Amino acid sequence: MREISDGELKSASLSQLKGICSELREEILAAVSACGGHLSSNLGAVELTVALHRVFDFPRDKIVFDVGHQCYTHKLLSGRAGAFCTLRQEGGLSGFPKRSESDYDCYGTGHAGTAISAALGFAKVRDLKGEDHAVIALVGDGSFNNGLIYEALNSLRILKTSILIILNDNGMSISETVGSMAGILKEMRESDGLIGAPFGHRPSGELCDRAEAIPEEDVRLFEHFGLTYMGVVNGHDMGELTAALENAKRALKKGSVLLHVHTRKGYGHPFCENAPTETHGVGGGGGAEYSSALGEELTALAETDGRVVAVTAAMTDSLGLRGFFERFPERAFDVGICEEHASVLCASLAAAGMRPYYAIYSTFLQRAYDEIVHDVCVQGLPVVFCIDRAGVTGRDGETHQGVFDLSYLTPIPGITIAVPKDIAEFRAMLRMSVRMNGPLAIRYPREGSEGEKIPENGLEIGKFEVLHSTMSDIVILAAGERCLNIARRVLRAANAEGMDAALVNARFVKPIDEELLSSLNAHTVITMEDNVLIGGLGDAVARFYRGSGKEVVSFGYPDVFIPHGAPCDLMREYGLDEERILACMRRAYARR
Amino acid sequence: MREISDGELKSASLSQLKGICSELREEILAAVSACGGHLSSNLGAVELTVALHRVFDFPRDKIVFDVGHQCYTHKLLSGRAGAFCTLRQEGGLSGFPKRSESDYDCYGTGHAGTAISAALGFAKVRDLKGEDHAVIALVGDGSFNNGLIYEALNSLRILKTSILIILNDNGMSISETVGSMAGILKEMRESDGLIGAPFGHRPSGELCDRAEAIPEEDVRLFEHFGLTYMGVVNGHDMGELTAALENAKRALKKGSVLLHVHTRKGYGHPFCENAPTETHGVGGGGGAEYSSALGEELTALAETDGRVVAVTAAMTDSLGLRGFFERFPERAFDVGICEEHASVLCASLAAAGMRPYYAIYSTFLQRAYDEIVHDVCVQGLPVVFCIDRAGVTGRDGETHQGVFDLSYLTPIPGITIAVPKDIAEFRAMLRMSVRMNGPLAIRYPREGSEGEKIPENGLEIGKFEVLHSTMSDIVILAAGERCLNIARRVLRAANAEGMDAALVNARFVKPIDEELLSSLNAHTVITMEDNVLIGGLGDAVARFYRGSGKEVVSFGYPDVFIPHGAPCDLMREYGLDEERILACMRRAYARR
Repeated sequence: MREISDGELKSASLSQLKGICSELREEILAAVSACGGHLSSNLGAVELTVALHRVFDFPRDKIVFDVGHQCYTHKLLSGRAGAFCTLRQEGGLSGFPKRSESDYDCYGTGHAGTAISAALGFAKVRDLKGEDHAVIALVGDGSFNNGLIYEALNSLRILKTSILIILNDNGMSISETVGSMAGILKEMRESDGLIGAPFGHRPSGELCDRAEAIPEEDVRLFEHFGLTYMGVVNGHDMGELTAALENAKRALKKGSVLLHVHTRKGYGHPFCENAPTETHGVGGGGGAEYSSALGEELTALAETDGRVVAVTAAMTDSLGLRGFFERFPERAFDVGICEEHASVLCASLAAAGMRPYYAIYSTFLQRAYDEIVHDVCVQGLPVVFCIDRAGVTGRDGETHQGVFDLSYLTPIPGITIAVPKDIAEFRAMLRMSVRMNGPLAIRYPREGSEGEKIPENGLEIGKFEVLHSTMSDIVILAAGERCLNIARRVLRAANAEGMDAALVNARFVKPIDEELLSSLNAHTVITMEDNVLIGGLGDAVARFYRGSGKEVVSFGYPDVFIPHGAPCDLMREYGLDEERILACMRRAYARR
Repeated sequence: MREISDGELKSASLSQLKGICSELREEILAAVSACGGHLSSNLGAVELTVALHRVFDFPRDKIVFDVGHQCYTHKLLSGRAGAFCTLRQEGGLSGFPKRSESDYDCYGTGHAGTAISAALGFAKVRDLKGEDHAVIALVGDGSFNNGLIYEALNSLRILKTSILIILNDNGMSISETVGSMAGILKEMRESDGLIGAPFGHRPSGELCDRAEAIPEEDVRLFEHFGLTYMGVVNGHDMGELTAALENAKRALKKGSVLLHVHTRKGYGHPFCENAPTETHGVGGGGGAEYSSALGEELTALAETDGRVVAVTAAMTDSLGLRGFFERFPERAFDVGICEEHASVLCASLAAAGMRPYYAIYSTFLQRAYDEIVHDVCVQGLPVVFCIDRAGVTGRDGETHQGVFDLSYLTPIPGITIAVPKDIAEFRAMLRMSVRMNGPLAIRYPREGSEGEKIPENGLEIGKFEVLHSTMSDIVILAAGERCLNIARRVLRAANAEGMDAALVNARFVKPIDEELLSSLNAHTVITMEDNVLIGGLGDAVARFYRGSGKEVVSFGYPDVFIPHGAPCDLMREYGLDEERILACMRRAYARR
């Protein structure tokens, strides 16, 4: 779309601003339809972002978007409208704020809860330098469940600075926000009489710095932390919004402000408004087959084993567990965006005799690293981490690639790490897990194929599976369905050239199958993993073979952050390239 | 000391209980004098723990100690009085709650903030099983800064169960508790008229379920989260304590309760009461030389470089930064026990142009793993992690060993990891860091020796240092002072047997010195690191040498959690054994 200048925005009438909002909505819809992306969250923040750009002066003023699911309008208003059609495409605009993309993105995000901490840093530096620009953290209500937000709020008085926190409250994170804080915010919204009544029915022009209807103690909740509370503001009324932001800007001179803005997720698009969860993220690319299998299998296990419980951190649907939650509400816990708490909760559920399954995306499990070590593994507790979206995830870019989990989990004593070759094997791993007595991590990508059913007790911990046996001097050890698919294609091409290799399903990255590795006569061992090379399967195999004279050649990702793009393209470009693996085989043949 | 039976405790008169408390205090003092340990925190919780054991029935009722710095009385009252003299000694009692040690320790701790999450897990399982015992989380006010506590509080209403949270509020964590929550708690304590007045001066027998003097909205703060607030109770008045606990126990039938108990850290021992920070931990073993150097060097750097700022998470003194905080209060931030927030704050301070130094213990940095990846390294920001207490730390056991940091940091793209050979090199690394433009981690143990001053610009990133050059076929690459000391002793013994080896200071674990490694003619490369073997220096060197025919033999820790004991003993027993390294050299010589 056309670039809308700061001048145009600042001089526009309210009705012209309304027109601009419509333009922006159309562009967001068009781009997300073409490229996929976060739809409802961005649609709900159009007026708020336009008002911010009208009232503040970016990039002189700084804004940090928590998570970043609502930054599209900001991108469109900061010189990136022309490039917006490249959203989430390789080499195109990122779907998240990114420092390297624009001066208007002062701080990159992707995971929840970081914005207030980040804003505090910028504000402190402003103070130290004697500057006077505003620093804004735009935070959704879902993030207000997260411990990081609380830690940052708690330090407002310590840091003695001034920031504007805008609470973009639509009562939802990806799905409905849960927990006590959500209840408090809801009470505040409702006291203000906004819920139930259609937007825009409040006397226009009237602005409440503090909604008189909100109980004094709720306002005090934020004031305890050193914040002046202002709200609740209708997040789709441009007049109300700009007036409130002007007020907040003035109040910032005296200290930090929390401006409570009520928005509707998906606003301006009837379908999205009615299905905000379903339209939160659009066009992720194909079904989520592993997560469906997780839901089915866990539900089946729970029917016969009363110890089975499921824990999620605000991602129940995309993890495939909606059915489980409906079937066993008393044994299913969605604790909101609280990855650490969820992990400790699992540890204690296990300590008390249950079998907790903690389903989480690979990238978000990083949040619970200490709790995996300190709570689960030090105590050797039978918690099963169901690590979804492992490996390259694609369009969300650097902050969302699930390519570190094998590396950060492998050094932890006592944990078993499994990587299924297909969904049938994933199901077998889940059934096996009930009989285990220590921590287990199963990591898998989004998409998958069903594969052949594995008989009961057909899996043994730490045992690989030989898929193709041969007298060749080369063996390929591949972890996971994606790598095995690539390996099979490589083998077909190799066969056409008269070469062959054994193919092994390295379904446990920890412990590895030392017995099988010892028995191999191959002089060249090729490993493949959908993970960074440092600290993964390849290193584990090479460690085992040290001093054996065998050559271990590993394929996986190099020591860089992988940007956004199509997963299959990124896998090929960043290290899992059939041609390179085939070339490696040719070299090994030549050396014989 | 003698075992005090549950029967004796439950039938004792108040004055007899007072006597028992004196006995317990003497035993704690004696054991800590002999074995080291946490003194003031435990002295402050004697009456509270005795009252808990009188009112509740452990181990049927469950108690989770947050951090575990106040569990000694519990150990003495649960069949472990006879063994208490073995506290923190190898093979003896742990200084922290430990499931494998006693049924009375239902959940192990060591790091802050986990107790409420853990208690919720036990309570849910109780409900699911239809049992009716009490579940208690004993939490110090310092932990109330931590995000995990907030995440757990936020999920109280989601989980619909009933736990008793005892807030042991002495206004301190290791040093004075900071932040808004600390201010709120202080206001609540003071409203109750306890502060300032000597303990015991309240009308005895009078119990306030809710202190009328506390502003309604403060009580609401906890009630928002689904808690009935009771307090403030004098934590050293046995009558008041037992009555309050009885009350709380009854109230638990209707839902979760927060009992606010005011204690004095170090109570009952005048010296500790007057110096609670200094007597928090006793007998850690020798000076903390690296941390002193950190304080000196950062202060010197900050004098000439206005960008230098320091961030800590409630450990300012033990990290050596008290002097820096006093000299540059406006550039020094202690945010409380908030390791994640501190990390994001550093990232944004760096994004805004400063040079933040985040000083933290290795084991606690695990809490900030996602923020190291997502906030610091994805954005390539120049944050310096000063990782103290790296390697085996000893007496605190499994939960505190700093033996994972090389492994979990190495897979992260863009980070530089340095391991100084002595304090002079550490100083040089800090001076070098100001000129760097990306993330840097420097890891070091507590104790150290000064060493020879390194000239300005005497360090180059990724360059090892050859300490002893020889024509031998063996080279030892050792990271850090401890390993180099062992290596030197091994070399002396080897020399006496007519063997020799080159010795290299592997002062960067990432990037490693590929140029130097390429130039080595040795057929055997021995690596040594004060870290687990999986994912550490040895793996990095072996990865480099893959396919070269060189034999890489690595010494470090195996894939187990290392229990408590003297650091030097643990290092030897768990893998850095001079005799084993010497034997490795003999084998390499024999194979020539």
